[in-house]
Amino acid sequence: MTQPKLDVIAIGNAIIDVIGNCQDSLIDDLGLTHGGMQLIDADQARTLYAAMGPAREVSGGSAANTLAGLAALGAQCGFVGQVAADQLGEVFTHDIHAAGIEFSVPARAGETPTARCLIFVTPDGQRTMNTFLGASHLLSADMVDEAAIADAAVLYLEGYLWDPVEPRAAMRKAIAAARAAGRKIAFTPSESFIIDMHRLDFLELIEDGAIDLMFCNEHEMASLTGKPGFEDGIAQLGAKVDVLVVTRGAEGAVALQGGERVEVTAEPIDRVVDTTGAGDLFAAGFLYGHVRGKSLADSLRMGALCASEIISHYGARPECDLADFVEQRMGQ
Amino acid sequence: MTQPKLDVIAIGNAIIDVIGNCQDSLIDDLGLTHGGMQLIDADQARTLYAAMGPAREVSGGSAANTLAGLAALGAQCGFVGQVAADQLGEVFTHDIHAAGIEFSVPARAGETPTARCLIFVTPDGQRTMNTFLGASHLLSADMVDEAAIADAAVLYLEGYLWDPVEPRAAMRKAIAAARAAGRKIAFTPSESFIIDMHRLDFLELIEDGAIDLMFCNEHEMASLTGKPGFEDGIAQLGAKVDVLVVTRGAEGAVALQGGERVEVTAEPIDRVVDTTGAGDLFAAGFLYGHVRGKSLADSLRMGALCASEIISHYGARPECDLADFVEQRMGQ
Repeated sequence: MTQPKLDVIAIGNAIIDVIGNCQDSLIDDLGLTHGGMQLIDADQARTLYAAMGPAREVSGGSAANTLAGLAALGAQCGFVGQVAADQLGEVFTHDIHAAGIEFSVPARAGETPTARCLIFVTPDGQRTMNTFLGASHLLSADMVDEAAIADAAVLYLEGYLWDPVEPRAAMRKAIAAARAAGRKIAFTPSESFIIDMHRLDFLELIEDGAIDLMFCNEHEMASLTGKPGFEDGIAQLGAKVDVLVVTRGAEGAVALQGGERVEVTAEPIDRVVDTTGAGDLFAAGFLYGHVRGKSLADSLRMGALCASEIISHYGARPECDLADFVEQRMGQ
Repeated sequence: MTQPKLDVIAIGNAIIDVIGNCQDSLIDDLGLTHGGMQLIDADQARTLYAAMGPAREVSGGSAANTLAGLAALGAQCGFVGQVAADQLGEVFTHDIHAAGIEFSVPARAGETPTARCLIFVTPDGQRTMNTFLGASHLLSADMVDEAAIADAAVLYLEGYLWDPVEPRAAMRKAIAAARAAGRKIAFTPSESFIIDMHRLDFLELIEDGAIDLMFCNEHEMASLTGKPGFEDGIAQLGAKVDVLVVTRGAEGAVALQGGERVEVTAEPIDRVVDTTGAGDLFAAGFLYGHVRGKSLADSLRMGALCASEIISHYGARPECDLADFVEQRMGQ
């Protein structure tokens, strides 16, 4: 097996986050679930945007955020996702290129705009996400270059993209290419409601040994395994994948690999500004440690550090020199 | 004279700020002037954007930022400016409406996009701005509703828009409408290079008594008066306008009105993140005090407080409850 050119290639949603602050009462008035994520159509996007206060726009998308973290740490990365040929698509493309990530899927012409996620951030820093998928769910399997997949040590997939038909085919094609090349596959189911819709697919992938590294939070693990108890879930899922990383928000995280189990507490920070991307950047820090051959404990701590940086400001893309930030704190 | 419906109506650039961090060396490599502002064309915008790191998009525009501050403090405001019928135009329009500001100039169809300001922020928090004016400089006099101008206590004008021909005509029409209605006119020359291009116009407006409130920084005052000495400049300009507010960055600010002179030190803050909009928000705080009949000293302090909020984060639009922020600190 040749040395891969990239550390991680990811397939994910190409989204611009539109982030506005609000009081808890607005979440209730709009009938949203505090801390949740829902898919919305163009009409709902219009209504919710009109109800949102002044906002800021920052590139997002779960797997793309993870790559931005990985690249900031020093990893070589590639991204596969679909933007439209519009201004928000240009913004997404600029930001991913500026992060040093390879991205060559052509912008899609036509009426369907680039995906947007309307994110309401409450005073507790919790984010309530409303995603209009736009062009993002029109990613076709043709956009997956099997040679590029084979030339990355890890293929990273986000469950959010499993729901629409075309991207699912793209991901299945990529899984086959990665397995044929003997590469590792990392997967995050993204959300409990995605698991509810595609539990059988996900369990089949796990049973088939198609997933080497699984990233999820405790709720997703419970949904996936059907076991409400944390230890029961860990035992079941940990036996099926090579590496399991389960985040527990403010409670920290747990990682299992080959019988080894390590835990980390959440990194203390002055103020939680916006939790958007916490899980994405946790995955970034962990994966960076993993591909660089760090210990399980060190990889987990790098995940916790990256998550702490991202929740200290608005937006799910790193704002500081993340490599320096992590290096300074790893010694402590 | 009837009671006006609005406190302040402003004519200004309708711009989306694209804010990226960089090292000082990039400013040098790109041949930019650290802390400066330049107008760029579409080709330069492409080149500079390609050189910029990952960015965040936040609504901007000098006078629009001032209005956002005023509205956040509780003033009734209206804006006149030109966006294109594109996604960035929608973002600008959303943000200004979400701030509670009246804005009804229709988005302009056609090839010319909404204005963008590419802002490079160095580690010292200084911003280096590169503005592609796009649709913004196509604001025509037809878009100025004289009845709306007459129905605002203060007309606020930014010098940035004096350069392009059509907006200048729009501003002259608005000045005439405000004077005819007996309203006050506030003006900021915006930048020294704008003064260099239009010094005679500005001096004529001042001599004609068309400017009641003048907002500038010490460099702009020196350029306008031709007097390098601060006290000389203050003496000359202060004699020509009813109210003069001169900001001096970290040195604080000075205000003169009817023989009274007050000074304020810059509000101490933990870290200067991004100075973009400091002058705009200083004007917002001062103007709010002015239209609410506060003392000259209190108005000046409100300006300093608003400026301190805006430089503590990226972007030139307030991120906290500005009214609460100012009220809490005014008592101290």
